[in-house]
Amino acid sequence: METAQRVYKGLEGVYVLESSLCLIDTEHGKLYYLGYDVEELAEKSSYEEVSYLLLHGRLPKRPELEEFVGKLRSEMRLTPEEMRDVQYAAKRTGPMDALAAFYLFASKDPPQTKDPMEHAIRAVAKAGSVLGNVVRVQRGEEPMEPQPELGIAGNLVYLVTSKKPEQYQTEFLDDILILHAEHGVPASTFGAVVTASTLSDIYSSIVTGLMTLKGPLHGGAAEAAYYQFVEIGDPNRVESWLERALAEKRRVMGFGHRVYKIYDPRARYVKAMAARAAELAGGRVKTLYEIAVRLEQAAIERLSARGLYPNVDFWTPIVYTAIGIPPGYFTAVFAVSRVVGWVAHVVEYWKDNRLIRPLHLYTGPESGQRYVPIEERG
Amino acid sequence: METAQRVYKGLEGVYVLESSLCLIDTEHGKLYYLGYDVEELAEKSSYEEVSYLLLHGRLPKRPELEEFVGKLRSEMRLTPEEMRDVQYAAKRTGPMDALAAFYLFASKDPPQTKDPMEHAIRAVAKAGSVLGNVVRVQRGEEPMEPQPELGIAGNLVYLVTSKKPEQYQTEFLDDILILHAEHGVPASTFGAVVTASTLSDIYSSIVTGLMTLKGPLHGGAAEAAYYQFVEIGDPNRVESWLERALAEKRRVMGFGHRVYKIYDPRARYVKAMAARAAELAGGRVKTLYEIAVRLEQAAIERLSARGLYPNVDFWTPIVYTAIGIPPGYFTAVFAVSRVVGWVAHVVEYWKDNRLIRPLHLYTGPESGQRYVPIEERG
Repeated sequence: METAQRVYKGLEGVYVLESSLCLIDTEHGKLYYLGYDVEELAEKSSYEEVSYLLLHGRLPKRPELEEFVGKLRSEMRLTPEEMRDVQYAAKRTGPMDALAAFYLFASKDPPQTKDPMEHAIRAVAKAGSVLGNVVRVQRGEEPMEPQPELGIAGNLVYLVTSKKPEQYQTEFLDDILILHAEHGVPASTFGAVVTASTLSDIYSSIVTGLMTLKGPLHGGAAEAAYYQFVEIGDPNRVESWLERALAEKRRVMGFGHRVYKIYDPRARYVKAMAARAAELAGGRVKTLYEIAVRLEQAAIERLSARGLYPNVDFWTPIVYTAIGIPPGYFTAVFAVSRVVGWVAHVVEYWKDNRLIRPLHLYTGPESGQRYVPIEERG
Repeated sequence: METAQRVYKGLEGVYVLESSLCLIDTEHGKLYYLGYDVEELAEKSSYEEVSYLLLHGRLPKRPELEEFVGKLRSEMRLTPEEMRDVQYAAKRTGPMDALAAFYLFASKDPPQTKDPMEHAIRAVAKAGSVLGNVVRVQRGEEPMEPQPELGIAGNLVYLVTSKKPEQYQTEFLDDILILHAEHGVPASTFGAVVTASTLSDIYSSIVTGLMTLKGPLHGGAAEAAYYQFVEIGDPNRVESWLERALAEKRRVMGFGHRVYKIYDPRARYVKAMAARAAELAGGRVKTLYEIAVRLEQAAIERLSARGLYPNVDFWTPIVYTAIGIPPGYFTAVFAVSRVVGWVAHVVEYWKDNRLIRPLHLYTGPESGQRYVPIEERG
């Protein structure tokens, strides 16, 4: 009946959709959004403009960007009801689940306009305002009104630190958000598309993305890398720590990537940011950076033959720490940036929607088993 | 670099995993769980026993079933905190989102035991108690304590109707729950597995399942069929309604299935239940049944050549109405029954986990676009 019975477990190497959003050039270690080098975008553009690029497929002219940013800013505010949702969820569960709860509740509110783009923009705008207040509530602080005029990155730093952010903090976070905005169809994005393919709504797709990014094989690597640096504790202990770790067959966190077999371009960019962050912030950030640099060198000597290089999650913890993001929230910041990638894929997929309905290869007992009454089961 | 560039859109015909849970025999119109004919299970077994079968791969002996049912019953109760979650979510959003919110919050609570089976059983047990109270709260009624000794089906009828259920109501719902418990890898189950493949938790996988089942191309068919019967209103108007509907190229709701090309075995079983329900409940249920019977006959004459037959969603609305489930909650009852299918797939997949990470075929602009400063964009 069906053609081949080969099982594509993990869907490795299987093309599941067409997309114009990003090109991952694994051979040259480059990443492009709509043809633009992501490193150039991080340097010259803003997260808001990159969001426009991903949602509309091209860079905006000035009036278009102004209109788009205006919409984002008005949606960055939280209504009293939304603020109650954030507080309820933040007290009840972890940051990823609290973000998801917000989007669950948000899906009820808006007039269900036919235009998914309005919902997409709303979803992108809210993410940082929600996460910033989740951090606050979970630290026992009062929630704060978002400051949309600080931009998406600046507003998140402001909410997390309770201070008007330093220029460099906003710039660092803006770059990080740009670099994490889109990356093809990893599990979380593919899950979001699976949800969308039933014509479920944008918010539900985001919830699926969050539930999937939560998994330690996907979104947790930056936090694991951070705790690894903390465990090492001192740059002079790197080599002895690595010896023991490799002897115990422990993984070096933040090394290797399913897609990149050479240096992850995002990692290269964030490494340079981490160097600047270490200088600007000094103290603990500097120590973390020195540990990371020495660990990278020592580990590359041993692991690069196996195609293992530092990925972006190896370097982001240092930058996050300089910005003031606590380690329990690294994955959630990743999620905030990736919201735009998820919704851009959904909007793109809906232009030629096809319900995702694969098959399974049956490996169970022969059909026609006799239902033996419970008394007679031996 | 990669092998073939064929895009498997919708993953139609693609085998994504191995599973021993169910065999869908599309040629003969049969469905088996672990080799047992689902119609025989509906007739002779209980939803609790079928849950054991799906989770453990075989039918239980009596002491095993008693222990399993004991666990389910103790988990069917809702703690005061869980009851608060249900009330908060039910007031804030729709039934599918409220169920999802409950599982989001539930993922925080239990001691994170290493054994996913404990979480699976907890998740299966809670679903009906939560949904029953969501219905109550959304109708403006007070929540009620679940009655575990009524069983999963009886407890749900009790919570929805505020009355000790009639024997036939419990039996009907129990059969419906069995028939909907598992069906391979439709979008919702596949989504749940995508989430699980990152080693995210059981509850997160259920949330993904709910977000995906919500979509009108997946879970909404029974409600659409119900409103179609209501629109027709009278058995004598069926033929004229159908003439007009086909002329206007409207779909007949509850007809056709991506997998079955002949009569859906679950539809056959539920049709017989609907006949009994019409006799037992009379009144409006009888009218709905008579409309459905006449619509089936008239529509088969015109549509069977195109491989379109009534699916299970064509008949369930009649049975749901006899049980006392309001139409806005049909999809959520489907979800309650499918929780066990989702978690059984997750537990099975984790035995040989592989991160799901497909590829996309890039169709966007050539890489190396120049980032033109905004002032210079024409």
